[in-house]
Amino acid sequence: MNLPLCNELLLEQQGPVLKITLNRPARRNAMNAAMVAELMAVFEAIEGSRQVRAVVLRGAEANFCSGGDISGMQSGDGDPKHAMRAFNRSFGHLISRVNHAPQLVIAVLEGAVMGGGFGLACVADVAIAERGARFGMPEASLGVIPAQIAPFVVDRIGLTHARRLALLAERIDGVEAEQLGLVHHLCEGQEALEQQLTAVLRQLTRVAPNALAETKKLLLDVASLEREALLDRAADVFAACLLADEGQEGTLAFLQKRKPAWAANESGDADE
Amino acid sequence: MNLPLCNELLLEQQGPVLKITLNRPARRNAMNAAMVAELMAVFEAIEGSRQVRAVVLRGAEANFCSGGDISGMQSGDGDPKHAMRAFNRSFGHLISRVNHAPQLVIAVLEGAVMGGGFGLACVADVAIAERGARFGMPEASLGVIPAQIAPFVVDRIGLTHARRLALLAERIDGVEAEQLGLVHHLCEGQEALEQQLTAVLRQLTRVAPNALAETKKLLLDVASLEREALLDRAADVFAACLLADEGQEGTLAFLQKRKPAWAANESGDADE
Amino acid sequence: MNLPLCNELLLEQQGPVLKITLNRPARRNAMNAAMVAELMAVFEAIEGSRQVRAVVLRGAEANFCSGGDISGMQSGDGDPKHAMRAFNRSFGHLISRVNHAPQLVIAVLEGAVMGGGFGLACVADVAIAERGARFGMPEASLGVIPAQIAPFVVDRIGLTHARRLALLAERIDGVEAEQLGLVHHLCEGQEALEQQLTAVLRQLTRVAPNALAETKKLLLDVASLEREALLDRAADVFAACLLADEGQEGTLAFLQKRKPAWAANESGDADE
Repeated sequence: MNLPLCNELLLEQQGPVLKITLNRPARRNAMNAAMVAELMAVFEAIEGSRQVRAVVLRGAEANFCSGGDISGMQSGDGDPKHAMRAFNRSFGHLISRVNHAPQLVIAVLEGAVMGGGFGLACVADVAIAERGARFGMPEASLGVIPAQIAPFVVDRIGLTHARRLALLAERIDGVEAEQLGLVHHLCEGQEALEQQLTAVLRQLTRVAPNALAETKKLLLDVASLEREALLDRAADVFAACLLADEGQEGTLAFLQKRKPAWAANESGDADE
Repeated sequence: MNLPLCNELLLEQQGPVLKITLNRPARRNAMNAAMVAELMAVFEAIEGSRQVRAVVLRGAEANFCSGGDISGMQSGDGDPKHAMRAFNRSFGHLISRVNHAPQLVIAVLEGAVMGGGFGLACVADVAIAERGARFGMPEASLGVIPAQIAPFVVDRIGLTHARRLALLAERIDGVEAEQLGLVHHLCEGQEALEQQLTAVLRQLTRVAPNALAETKKLLLDVASLEREALLDRAADVFAACLLADEGQEGTLAFLQKRKPAWAANESGDADE
Repeated sequence: MNLPLCNELLLEQQGPVLKITLNRPARRNAMNAAMVAELMAVFEAIEGSRQVRAVVLRGAEANFCSGGDISGMQSGDGDPKHAMRAFNRSFGHLISRVNHAPQLVIAVLEGAVMGGGFGLACVADVAIAERGARFGMPEASLGVIPAQIAPFVVDRIGLTHARRLALLAERIDGVEAEQLGLVHHLCEGQEALEQQLTAVLRQLTRVAPNALAETKKLLLDVASLEREALLDRAADVFAACLLADEGQEGTLAFLQKRKPAWAANESGDADE
């Protein structure tokens, strides 16, 4: 696995964890076309890897991401409408790809979590937020629409709250984001945020890498596949997993009351 | 835009806000065929208008709506089954129309919010409730089913709570309605209710009228359109909005750090 | 209606209530093939009955159900992959059948509510839990996937929390299960659990048996039927219910301000 060279992102690999930092702090990490392309390339590079078991997504200098960079939208020689359309559509491709990453995606949310940043937060498997983070979809107050993030927001917090937040361009803080189920863990201050991240990464070691990928695929298929067909296929995958190395090791470790191989490097009690 | 003459409703237009009051207080604003027809006509009349930016839906004399008026169901000369079916189906058409109104629909919920009234509350973009309001689907305790409201209730509060409430014909108050996500803002007493309504209407001025309509359409399409097709179309709409008057004014106002034209009449800080 | 003879279940009929107890306490009521087959047979036997108005599902000796019994999976002479697939798939058939039972299904949740037991809890119309109950999907920590329960979990608690719980094989207690909407009523201790069950069964008497069955069918159809077609059919069912015995009795009782026939045996005020 080779990670691409990046200008708009900082990448750091620590064992099975890849940390990605959106790095345009002067613009509160607003996404331009280059950043979108780099994120796509990174997630494409790790697609087939089970050595990378988690991705931590965060922003530089205490903001997550303030959305799409409007100033970048005007660039390009051709038809401006065509360019804007393409730039907008690229966010949807990115969010879909992050949503379907076979790794555990953890978002660390501080400061601005707006527009496209809000959309990215909505596809994190685990979302950890600082209390004072600000979440919102400001699009309609700018005369446009939250085009590429809308379906992911509805999946995340339901239609009831999505319509209120989007139609009033309302901003909420971390407390309300947790109440809406957008965020899983709420933290007070930077130190608590890092501790929570460490706890989640420790918990991750319990889970078999390929089983995680297959479970995530299954959960994401629920919305689009017919129920009985989904269950038929899931039974096939179950049997294949059980007979593969992970399933054999997992059930054996369970019967022998020991930790499985994939948790071997971990110290301390992972079970609670 | 011409509003229809109404007998069962009170209509009041205040600038960009249309206030509709269900006005059969002696029957706790139960909906008869005439009221349903009038509501349909009003929402049809404002369908194409962007001058009307919000609709406030409430009931006369401290009840929202106690449901469909059973006594009205028996009228008509023809086949009783056919008449009942048609009367029942008309509620579904009404709730769908309110759901898809291109304006912000605000429900002010007091007293009885039952049956068809419960269904109407479920399609409000913003639902404001008095603490003592009573919500419920009593149908199964009358030997019938919550036929036309069921899908809107499931969309609103999820299957888990919909099945409990409907199958036990359970009643809940405003506090529980807020916990279930049916209601956005909970208020104690009449005065707090009016203040909350004023605050929401002030917030509304931030949002561009056509962007609001397009955003609402997009959110409602999430449930029925295939994901990638939805995102393709959303990108088209985004580019069109950005190049239209609202998008040009919105981005310019943002760069010039001033309020856009559609918020011009507002005093005070709209951003928080 | 004849109930089947059961070895892995205890069955007790009390008037309109059928109590089913999963009875393999030495294995914390883990489901083996025999238990799955017996549960299927019982729900099949009561399918057409409106005399049975509620099913109470619980586990022996203070555990609900710890999941599928892995040791039972290896049995069978033929192809092991085929046998595992079939055993796994049988859980999905069971959960679907319980989900669609025309009775009110009440789950009483104590101790272990894991894997397949978690799935069963997710299709209860009313879920009552003891505070200390433990809920989880441990599959991915065993190298396999929550194959047959995944869609029911997503329906129950939404994708956001389903992905966190499944991908980290996380365990939660009754308090968090209630916050996620998995559980409707949280109780402290055995006695409170029984009182809550009694209260729910008392509430049930208000509801007409066939109206309950038709309402439940309608709610479950929301996810799979096109909206307007669903509402058309619902109007047919509404008119049929209104003209049938239950609808006639229900509306007459309402107008006469008395309890309907189906609530006749009840003492005390069931309405609040």
